[in-house]
Amino acid sequence: MNNKAFILPNYLKQKKNLINNYLEKILIQCGLKQKLTRAMQYSVMAGGKRLRPTLALASAEAVSKNYIYALPCACAIEMIHTYSLIHDDLPSMDNDDLRRGIPTCHKAFSEAIAILAGDGLLTHAFQVLANPSPFFKKYPEKDILLDIIRLISDAAGVNGMIQGQIMDIDLNLKSSKLDYLKKMHKLKTGKMLVASVHAGALSVNAKQEMIKNLMIYGDKIGLAFQITDDILNVEGNSAIMGKATGSDALNNKITFPGLMGLEQSKKYAKELINDAICSLKNFHGNTLPLQAIAKYILTRNS
Amino acid sequence: MNNKAFILPNYLKQKKNLINNYLEKILIQCGLKQKLTRAMQYSVMAGGKRLRPTLALASAEAVSKNYIYALPCACAIEMIHTYSLIHDDLPSMDNDDLRRGIPTCHKAFSEAIAILAGDGLLTHAFQVLANPSPFFKKYPEKDILLDIIRLISDAAGVNGMIQGQIMDIDLNLKSSKLDYLKKMHKLKTGKMLVASVHAGALSVNAKQEMIKNLMIYGDKIGLAFQITDDILNVEGNSAIMGKATGSDALNNKITFPGLMGLEQSKKYAKELINDAICSLKNFHGNTLPLQAIAKYILTRNS
Repeated sequence: MNNKAFILPNYLKQKKNLINNYLEKILIQCGLKQKLTRAMQYSVMAGGKRLRPTLALASAEAVSKNYIYALPCACAIEMIHTYSLIHDDLPSMDNDDLRRGIPTCHKAFSEAIAILAGDGLLTHAFQVLANPSPFFKKYPEKDILLDIIRLISDAAGVNGMIQGQIMDIDLNLKSSKLDYLKKMHKLKTGKMLVASVHAGALSVNAKQEMIKNLMIYGDKIGLAFQITDDILNVEGNSAIMGKATGSDALNNKITFPGLMGLEQSKKYAKELINDAICSLKNFHGNTLPLQAIAKYILTRNS
Repeated sequence: MNNKAFILPNYLKQKKNLINNYLEKILIQCGLKQKLTRAMQYSVMAGGKRLRPTLALASAEAVSKNYIYALPCACAIEMIHTYSLIHDDLPSMDNDDLRRGIPTCHKAFSEAIAILAGDGLLTHAFQVLANPSPFFKKYPEKDILLDIIRLISDAAGVNGMIQGQIMDIDLNLKSSKLDYLKKMHKLKTGKMLVASVHAGALSVNAKQEMIKNLMIYGDKIGLAFQITDDILNVEGNSAIMGKATGSDALNNKITFPGLMGLEQSKKYAKELINDAICSLKNFHGNTLPLQAIAKYILTRNS
């Protein structure tokens, strides 16, 4: 694949199909007759960018042509992401009625079903990570599967995503607002984005040096992603985004534009994306998807 | 250890200390300065019988003297059990104010913190399963660790504990009430009890035949445990149990005494316990703890 032949929307569409097909298979195996599985399916298949699983596949592709080995862990990561959205949307947390343009899980089903659907997705993600074989003969060695479970349970856990959510809903400023904001985002979304590229690379036996550079990439785009999220909350079109905009300012949330100003935030995001692309310079595999995804983060409108 | 020397309360106390010490280490590593970890600790260390982890250790002991290998998975199972109690107690589920004699997690902290503490315990349980080494040099081989993760994520998941909870809160009778009740309990508590003895046995490299018999044991005591739970809800002392009794009848819950009568329920539980003890007859390891635990299930008062 050369530079001219690479078209990001086609790449994203192709990967999204791959991911969605695999997620459907996982859900069918859970038993779609059950209301619980239907609630899980409702949220998992509600759309979304599939950024995390696509990053896992693109990271694997930067290392090896066998990127398909990363598909089970990519889908497990998306299941964990979806569970976190279901729980974050609950009345006792962010109390959101809409997600991806449709009613949130607790609005479509009930609060109890939404809590359990989230629990189900989280638990089943580990089943998929430990047992990728039911629909898939190609998967990493057992040692690597365990490494992936370790890194994902860390990134999604009490010192990762969940702690980030606590910092978001239970503001407890001891450091500067900007340091707090960066730490919160690193935990809430950054660690799982880094885990996505890390797990993808591990799936294809990447060497330590490559993993190190991919983790820098993940770290930089993760922060840039949050900054652009905050920018979109100020400047975005709610119809395109499928959720309300302007809510951060109304809710007095601390945000990058609020602390640094809009222009400075844009400049900072751009620097981070440049750094992310630089971290890929010594790769021999196909890094065009990762480069294009990094650039897309700056220019996205949803 | 001979028959005369075995005293169950001493055994249970010794194992409880072992389990509590290990759970404390896990929680300290999560960072007790964090409110999230404190909420996790509040519920994990609130007491409780430690039935599941003790079963894992006792099952391992029926197979091998190296039963200590089962300690990490035993504690992970208790963390998963505690997460399920925290979420089941939430206002949108069973709406319980008391658990183990103290305010439930959402009463002591908040609903949001309780949801996240549950999520944190569930996620971190898989970290403990995949990475037992931080405080523990003795643990099963990697192949076995993966097998344990598979069986626990299945037992705790959409076709296990979570589905059982859905059946409990969202009654949908298509079969006879008794069949429904048995299936609900098998999923809600039975599969995790079976998983406890199964994981314990796997931890010490038990042979397939032994595992099969231990799973029969787990299955029988699991059902007996639920029947005695229902009996205690009719006959029990709420002060000893740390929770309200008589609530099943008030809430029109379907129960074994309600469907079979009290005497028939007691007889059925006794038969199950006899069957459980019979399944242990060909073991060469120390099965006294498992036998005594089975008998205790019949005679317990909390």
